[in-house]
Amino acid sequence: MIEYRNLRIALLGAGSVGSQVADQILQHGDELAARVGAGLELIGVAVRNPKSARETSIPAHLITTDAETLVRNADIVIEVMGGIEPARTLILSAINAGADVITANKALLAHHGPEIFDAAAQVGAQVFYEAAVAGAIPIIRPLRESLAGDRVNRILGIVNGTTNFILDRIDTYGESMESALAMATELGYAEADPTADIEGFDAAQKASILASLAFHTHVPVESVYREGITGVTLEQVQEARKSGYVVKLLAIAERIVGPDGTEGVSARVYPAMVPLSHPLAAVHGAYNAVFVQAEAAGSLMFYGAGAGGIQTASAVLGDLVTAARRHVIGGPGVAESTHATFPILPIGAIHTRYHVSLDIKDAPGALAEIASIFAKQGVSVESVEQKTATDGSLTATLVIGTHEAIEADLAATVEALAASPVVEHVSGVLRVEGL
Amino acid sequence: MIEYRNLRIALLGAGSVGSQVADQILQHGDELAARVGAGLELIGVAVRNPKSARETSIPAHLITTDAETLVRNADIVIEVMGGIEPARTLILSAINAGADVITANKALLAHHGPEIFDAAAQVGAQVFYEAAVAGAIPIIRPLRESLAGDRVNRILGIVNGTTNFILDRIDTYGESMESALAMATELGYAEADPTADIEGFDAAQKASILASLAFHTHVPVESVYREGITGVTLEQVQEARKSGYVVKLLAIAERIVGPDGTEGVSARVYPAMVPLSHPLAAVHGAYNAVFVQAEAAGSLMFYGAGAGGIQTASAVLGDLVTAARRHVIGGPGVAESTHATFPILPIGAIHTRYHVSLDIKDAPGALAEIASIFAKQGVSVESVEQKTATDGSLTATLVIGTHEAIEADLAATVEALAASPVVEHVSGVLRVEGL
Repeated sequence: MIEYRNLRIALLGAGSVGSQVADQILQHGDELAARVGAGLELIGVAVRNPKSARETSIPAHLITTDAETLVRNADIVIEVMGGIEPARTLILSAINAGADVITANKALLAHHGPEIFDAAAQVGAQVFYEAAVAGAIPIIRPLRESLAGDRVNRILGIVNGTTNFILDRIDTYGESMESALAMATELGYAEADPTADIEGFDAAQKASILASLAFHTHVPVESVYREGITGVTLEQVQEARKSGYVVKLLAIAERIVGPDGTEGVSARVYPAMVPLSHPLAAVHGAYNAVFVQAEAAGSLMFYGAGAGGIQTASAVLGDLVTAARRHVIGGPGVAESTHATFPILPIGAIHTRYHVSLDIKDAPGALAEIASIFAKQGVSVESVEQKTATDGSLTATLVIGTHEAIEADLAATVEALAASPVVEHVSGVLRVEGL
Repeated sequence: MIEYRNLRIALLGAGSVGSQVADQILQHGDELAARVGAGLELIGVAVRNPKSARETSIPAHLITTDAETLVRNADIVIEVMGGIEPARTLILSAINAGADVITANKALLAHHGPEIFDAAAQVGAQVFYEAAVAGAIPIIRPLRESLAGDRVNRILGIVNGTTNFILDRIDTYGESMESALAMATELGYAEADPTADIEGFDAAQKASILASLAFHTHVPVESVYREGITGVTLEQVQEARKSGYVVKLLAIAERIVGPDGTEGVSARVYPAMVPLSHPLAAVHGAYNAVFVQAEAAGSLMFYGAGAGGIQTASAVLGDLVTAARRHVIGGPGVAESTHATFPILPIGAIHTRYHVSLDIKDAPGALAEIASIFAKQGVSVESVEQKTATDGSLTATLVIGTHEAIEADLAATVEALAASPVVEHVSGVLRVEGL
């Protein structure tokens, strides 16, 4: 075998992912070198505060606060610090200095992906980001390469472990949203401020990345429609299960035809009812899974741990071996593909099904009035369940499932229902996906 | 964008996969060209009999019987003819003429992989084979690249759709093996001669390929231990379900430590009981799934259609785009990694659990005698279920589940049971995996 000089690896960040990455490089260096065909030399680890305690094998002399100098001396830069700045500036510096970049930073890619990919394309550098979506689960590489000769029609992803853990607790143990969130916080699945997870911001960033890859079209995170799980109630989850569904927060990327015939892309995040027979329904706890429907390949699912330091480090190291091998054998790799440039269609253009829960006045003609509201919007009703109150009140609860319809018409129906004199309260709306 | 000359694609075989591949190249040429950065020109399709009817868009002038000349004029050769010869000779010709090769031929890779990979390495050619294992499911690329920085400990794969369909019918509808096989044949899931599927030969070839990739070690197909499903009975499947298991034909590749402390690799195929809570238990019909346990990544599962012309064509086209991009951007890709060269350990060295079904004489002391046979081999019993015959005969049925033990000891136990005077008949043995 030809011997190559060591490749110089710079690591930005020594948190839960970074310290695992450093440990693996330092402890399994020989094995990695055998797979790459060259040694991997960790030349430095940039941190904000060199004094913060770390349970890691990183020798003190590798720790630095001068990230800018570090990235200019590296062949490959691994960014696992998170956040937009200084990550963005450092990655652009690394690229302009000729380094390849590996990042786990979904927020950065969702907000500044095109800037980074363009900078890389100009100098022939590579950007790898398997760890940015669904942790250890290989999903970026399959979309980028395995399905490159196919056409993806739809992606349904459980890409946020925190919300899946919470919804699974509610479903499995009958806990309230508050109690399930408290448990997620206690077990370390949820951050002190859980907003990014439970409001769907994290999932929206991943939807933006997945949709961009799948449809060869830049899908900005701002164009991703987003609803979090805070409106989901125990009653809805129990009602869904009785009807044969489980509630999951889904990141959806779909190729659709809009009402005016335009072919376009929809990217969206919301809690949805998934049939219990669907492979995604069996994804429990903090696990992630990405279900892909492609024209030729049919249905595929990728399942695994979506977070965790060591799991995410596995994805980073896979990218590191790929990047390093390309250094050894010469020649650049794969550029981002954005040739399709589909328009991004608004949420109103999608086709979906609604399950609407209503409190209505239990009076003659109420059901007829409600049925006529659906009919007026051209929305066809698939199922109706009415429960009359047992407390003697004159209120009944109605759960109405629709056939597939255009979102704009479904939303207009709900608006009309809320305004109807026979409806006291629209207590919940959930979409149905995966049928 | 720089314009490149068209890449010349040769296709060997126009069966169910080949005609789909040709259709995709001919019909979606523009889209593929956009993804690759160069045109893909199908320069010929080699077939054995040019007169056999094909439902495909391949123009007559592309059909040839002179495969040898065809491969020498191509940049990329796609081999989907199957079988060992002439596929092997043609692929070697193609490699020596400087072409990259894409093959879906699991038998060829399992039997002649090293010869082909060595020939490719010598001239810097690439060999892609995503379609050879589990059809459309991306599993080769994730093992080759995504997990390249991790250590795979174990792979459990449902990699043969025919046998999964049969076992699923038995489990779901209570059909007999014969009836389920007849249904598989009628629906086209099983060949007229189903030996390769039901005796596990097909799964063994895939186990050889997966184990070689996962452990960076050449695992010849001859070293794969193999049992088919023909010995599985409806009673066993029903008994398993009552105990919380489902019977699946598994291809297993595992890193193990042998009795003498040697670290090595085991590759094997057999029907096994999988806990109903395991993700593999939910893989129904002719679907495939590969469950991977890696040191850092944890548990991953890849699920999808394992066969079918258009599904397999999707995997071939993914490889085609990857191969073609590398032509456009220059520089070779990834070579096979065999640096680890683990020894291949025999089946007797593995650790597993047995469920043994026995017909025994319903006489005093029989159970004690049987328990002592287990104890003598150092095998610890985990569960015992005894059913006394209701027909007045003096025979009882016993199902004994063991704790984990060394296969050699478990096999010796079964042998001693069969020889015991209190045992009339060892009616079935199934291993338990996935716990």
